[in-house]
Amino acid sequence: MRGVELSEEAAADALSGLRLPHDRDVVDAFARVWWTVLAEPGDGAAGDLVARFGPERALRIALAETDDEWSTARARWQPRVKPSAVRAALDAARRSGAALLIPSDPRWPRRLSDLGAHAPHALWMRGARGGLGEAPTVAIVGARAATPYGESVAAELGAELAAAGVVVVSGAAYGIDGAAHRAALSADGRTVAFLAGGVDRAYPRGHEALLSRIAASGAVLSETPCGTAPTKWRFLSRNRLIAALADAVIVVEAGHRSGSLNTAAHAATLGRALGAVPGPVTSAASAGSHRVLREFAGVCVTSAADVWEMLGENGGAAAGRAAPDRLEGGRTDDMTRLLDALSPRAGRDPGEIARRAGFSTGDAQSLLGLAELEGRVARGEDGLWRTLRERA
Amino acid sequence: MRGVELSEEAAADALSGLRLPHDRDVVDAFARVWWTVLAEPGDGAAGDLVARFGPERALRIALAETDDEWSTARARWQPRVKPSAVRAALDAARRSGAALLIPSDPRWPRRLSDLGAHAPHALWMRGARGGLGEAPTVAIVGARAATPYGESVAAELGAELAAAGVVVVSGAAYGIDGAAHRAALSADGRTVAFLAGGVDRAYPRGHEALLSRIAASGAVLSETPCGTAPTKWRFLSRNRLIAALADAVIVVEAGHRSGSLNTAAHAATLGRALGAVPGPVTSAASAGSHRVLREFAGVCVTSAADVWEMLGENGGAAAGRAAPDRLEGGRTDDMTRLLDALSPRAGRDPGEIARRAGFSTGDAQSLLGLAELEGRVARGEDGLWRTLRERA
Repeated sequence: MRGVELSEEAAADALSGLRLPHDRDVVDAFARVWWTVLAEPGDGAAGDLVARFGPERALRIALAETDDEWSTARARWQPRVKPSAVRAALDAARRSGAALLIPSDPRWPRRLSDLGAHAPHALWMRGARGGLGEAPTVAIVGARAATPYGESVAAELGAELAAAGVVVVSGAAYGIDGAAHRAALSADGRTVAFLAGGVDRAYPRGHEALLSRIAASGAVLSETPCGTAPTKWRFLSRNRLIAALADAVIVVEAGHRSGSLNTAAHAATLGRALGAVPGPVTSAASAGSHRVLREFAGVCVTSAADVWEMLGENGGAAAGRAAPDRLEGGRTDDMTRLLDALSPRAGRDPGEIARRAGFSTGDAQSLLGLAELEGRVARGEDGLWRTLRERA
Repeated sequence: MRGVELSEEAAADALSGLRLPHDRDVVDAFARVWWTVLAEPGDGAAGDLVARFGPERALRIALAETDDEWSTARARWQPRVKPSAVRAALDAARRSGAALLIPSDPRWPRRLSDLGAHAPHALWMRGARGGLGEAPTVAIVGARAATPYGESVAAELGAELAAAGVVVVSGAAYGIDGAAHRAALSADGRTVAFLAGGVDRAYPRGHEALLSRIAASGAVLSETPCGTAPTKWRFLSRNRLIAALADAVIVVEAGHRSGSLNTAAHAATLGRALGAVPGPVTSAASAGSHRVLREFAGVCVTSAADVWEMLGENGGAAAGRAAPDRLEGGRTDDMTRLLDALSPRAGRDPGEIARRAGFSTGDAQSLLGLAELEGRVARGEDGLWRTLRERA
């Protein structure tokens, strides 16, 4: 098959030292490595072919010399059939200590299958962490050209979420991404970086030490083979993996046409919870965040507690867990006091409610308006307020 | 009837000089004036009684000495039965040149009827403008303790909307309210202030000159009789009138428990479009705006063009009008270029689309993601993009 040797022996030999589980099908794994070399990330035709026929048979079809429905795609793939390129990628992986992950591997992040035909064929991982996507996972993404405001908010979110056991995933870029990773590390939390190029290449170069620290405590991942340079297309494709791995995607700062909006669009398509941190409307660095709020109906995120709430609402991995005390804040205290001052039977006027709850009448009135919107209280014909349902 | 003289002659005499239309029922009007003296704003029992029996008969029931379903409310109203108080209010109105508006008056703002039993019995108006609520009307509200950021955004919104023919309504307070009114005036636009006390009293005192300017080009309105001092309750009640008069309510800056949230709650209850201007999450002055975005699902407003879009979506008075050129901005230009580069038949890849549209491939990819979310384009099995529906 045009220089592609897929025997079990050849496959086992080629993949030695890449930390595959012993019971995995090495031919399947080796065929997947070939696919990561032949096809660009997110190539739907490649994904479709592999999904229908399995990676090995799909590879045979890809390399055939016939004229059928796959001919257009073949024209993209066949110029890349170079065994030396596969060998070089595998050698580079071994040198950098990268592991090869395939979908049948228990360490494979299950949530990536939500990408369907656009799921990656395989992943390369620096770091020893499996179970990706089992703990609640939040993507914190944003502009490289971040402001000090954006970086400090990203750092606060990253540190508080990581300290609460959330895995912080991002793209290791300068600006927001780096601030989020660094904060998670400084909180002794777990953080995961998805790269657009090979995991053996530090990109950006200035984040070489940061990437090593991420790998040491979490994971650095890529679907592109080792040695691959990042391109604009690969950055955009990488964004879908960040969105797919996360329960919630938070855009901290982003320009009007930032790549982070692409991550946000993937999150929306995948049904992931989506939020954005607002900023001044006069700041160009927040224009993209405001588009997420406005055009994608993103949740307005002002604190880690807001993100925690999103995880619960999304029914994701975090659902059912109680919010750690440190994230609860005082959000509901006022409402609790208000509801305690009401009764389902005896109607009360705002003055009396205010006295019972220890608010000014004005504050009580504001809270009554909120509670009414939430369907917890109602004002009767007599103008008096009552609670509507029993509280747990 | 306990000193309340409701003959047509007495009513006509009491109301002379208050600019009522000649063909109106003066007894109905005079009974309404009595109601504004007897009942606090938003008194649901008073609204209910008047809605069921008309103001005159409702007044007779209110003043009766019997024990029935209205007894609780009577205990509130009867201590206020003082003909001298009514005379003083009418004299103060005449001195300040205020007009009396009643629901049958063609100048009455129809939209206030959305308040049902909580609609005002009558309005007092300084200024000569009728037709309130006929032009698109936007409420710009917010904190007294505004920051320079908030005031400048309020001024920009007020000026641009007023210049485009939108009536800017607010509460004449220091901070955001004042900035919005002043900007509308400086753009030679129309602006309306709702006061919590009588229109003959400048509140706050420091806005005396501003209120005179508002009255000269628009209107200063209140449901409380002249001479009435504002109270916390009256401020909150006044907020429902601001929300009811507007097609859209925009909160510019507001603290976590600001009265502006009460206006926002009224807007949500009334089904008015509701938006908020974001700010830094580190600014306490924006905490309430962020609550509007988060808890009330308010629209993220970054410019007057955003507000204009809300007016269209809301199907309010502004629906069907074209946005003035100056408000359109460049929002859709990129999307138009993208869609022009696509075809419903011939599938194209992002590279070709980028070439045709003159974008980088990355920008084309971002826009394709947005367009996909909007249901305008789709990626086929072949990985190529096509437009989904014909554009107008």
